[in-house]
Amino acid sequence: MKIILGPSSKELGEKIADLTGFPKVPVASKIFPDGESYIRLESNVQNEHAVIVQTTSKPQDTNLMQLIFMVNAAKRNGARKITGVVPYLAYARQDKIFLEGENVSIESVAALLEKAGLDELITVNIHAETALEKFPFPTRNLTAIPTIAEYFVKKGYRNAFALAPDKGALYIARQAQQVLCGEAGSLDKTRDRFTGQTKQTGKPLNVKGKVVIVFDDIINTGGTIVGAAKILKEHGATEVYAACVHGLLVGDAEKRMLDAGIEEIVATDSVPGLNSKVSLAPLISEALRAL
Amino acid sequence: MKIILGPSSKELGEKIADLTGFPKVPVASKIFPDGESYIRLESNVQNEHAVIVQTTSKPQDTNLMQLIFMVNAAKRNGARKITGVVPYLAYARQDKIFLEGENVSIESVAALLEKAGLDELITVNIHAETALEKFPFPTRNLTAIPTIAEYFVKKGYRNAFALAPDKGALYIARQAQQVLCGEAGSLDKTRDRFTGQTKQTGKPLNVKGKVVIVFDDIINTGGTIVGAAKILKEHGATEVYAACVHGLLVGDAEKRMLDAGIEEIVATDSVPGLNSKVSLAPLISEALRAL
Repeated sequence: MKIILGPSSKELGEKIADLTGFPKVPVASKIFPDGESYIRLESNVQNEHAVIVQTTSKPQDTNLMQLIFMVNAAKRNGARKITGVVPYLAYARQDKIFLEGENVSIESVAALLEKAGLDELITVNIHAETALEKFPFPTRNLTAIPTIAEYFVKKGYRNAFALAPDKGALYIARQAQQVLCGEAGSLDKTRDRFTGQTKQTGKPLNVKGKVVIVFDDIINTGGTIVGAAKILKEHGATEVYAACVHGLLVGDAEKRMLDAGIEEIVATDSVPGLNSKVSLAPLISEALRAL
Repeated sequence: MKIILGPSSKELGEKIADLTGFPKVPVASKIFPDGESYIRLESNVQNEHAVIVQTTSKPQDTNLMQLIFMVNAAKRNGARKITGVVPYLAYARQDKIFLEGENVSIESVAALLEKAGLDELITVNIHAETALEKFPFPTRNLTAIPTIAEYFVKKGYRNAFALAPDKGALYIARQAQQVLCGEAGSLDKTRDRFTGQTKQTGKPLNVKGKVVIVFDDIINTGGTIVGAAKILKEHGATEVYAACVHGLLVGDAEKRMLDAGIEEIVATDSVPGLNSKVSLAPLISEALRAL
């Protein structure tokens, strides 16, 4: 097995290679002045099981195309099997038709990756696991929630309340609860499909005097967390933390959350950034060793 | 036949629909705050031959993904045939391996479009026609050079010297010559594959006292045109114009060319912009009527 260090996940790829001991394949990459991507594998993967580590967070389309180009390069170079490690999988949330005339983006992404020659996909906390049904080849969805909960245990927050900002994320809060050994619960959230606006509603939650960690798979604009923080503070929570696997944190999301009284934002290196405090390298390395 | 107005070529699509009389299918599109694209066909294409007009100039990857998503939406909506009109086809210049470990980007693009469900592709002045051999479905490559030459004839530049900045573009200059009825010729250019640097060399050219129009398929950074202008002026050309199909014009390309003494830059709406003075709509409409 060889680890191809995709441009969007170079550091994570290096950590995985270091942890597993598998050789690294550096990738020369650039964006031409006109905007096109260029990639080149800098060492050989002939007859190898090639593992391409490339997240597809922003710029999603460019990171996806680079992933496809690396698969093409690995195939041309004679790789015998190609596994994609894509911690954040773009377009996973457009997994069904909501309005007539729409497309199913994740279906297109799955088809493109198959056509490119990918044999297998490993991703982390995909928004809806049903999206993986669109993939015509084996996939694996890892969960980083226990690893993130461990981060909080190490900081001394054992027994913190694990809160999901909506019912759909309750399974995430429950995974965190397994590690934190405190309580778990959720708020309610509804979304208008035309405007994209969400509305949050509180319900009696026993968070008075407690440290609460809001767990979600993705933090996007931070609006959900800001709304949750407000409700939690009203219910008497003493400290509120925000934890997620994929910290997209668009625009001023971070500032908005900190202004809303969030003590700290903790995310993983699925989306490289200042809040990537938890590395997925141990989790992914374990999965690769088991292949 | 119905014309789907892709977001990157909305105006061109509308002109084509107006010229051909085929109904328009508007497309609702947006970029989500996190950077993902969303598209929705706003009217029905069931049992129709759907023609998607979507150029793939910058941002190439996003325009490509949107094209793929529109193909997916049209298929889901029951289109019986889908033709892509992609005036500027991204990645057409990465059509072979130059160094080991590279990929063949246009091969990936071709495979993706096939997999998405495209039945047929119409493009305009692809950089190398051999790139179309990678496409596993019917393709057509139109040339806009005569249309651009007509623009100059209408401005009173009949008999201008049609010059190709390198030998590879001589066939383009010859197409222009057919309309302009003047002379045609070319300069020489060599490129270093590692650095991407090009070197231009003059040769005795009979341009003294003449109006010269430099014709190329693509103007990218403008460096080639700037070099050509210098040589042409040295050889006594009185006026030098720059004409191309695809005016990518990255960075300060336009300023550099004007500073080098280029009188005017003329491009088509394959890449929408201030220099898109020639519309491809008549050329494409004619091709669609002949389908």
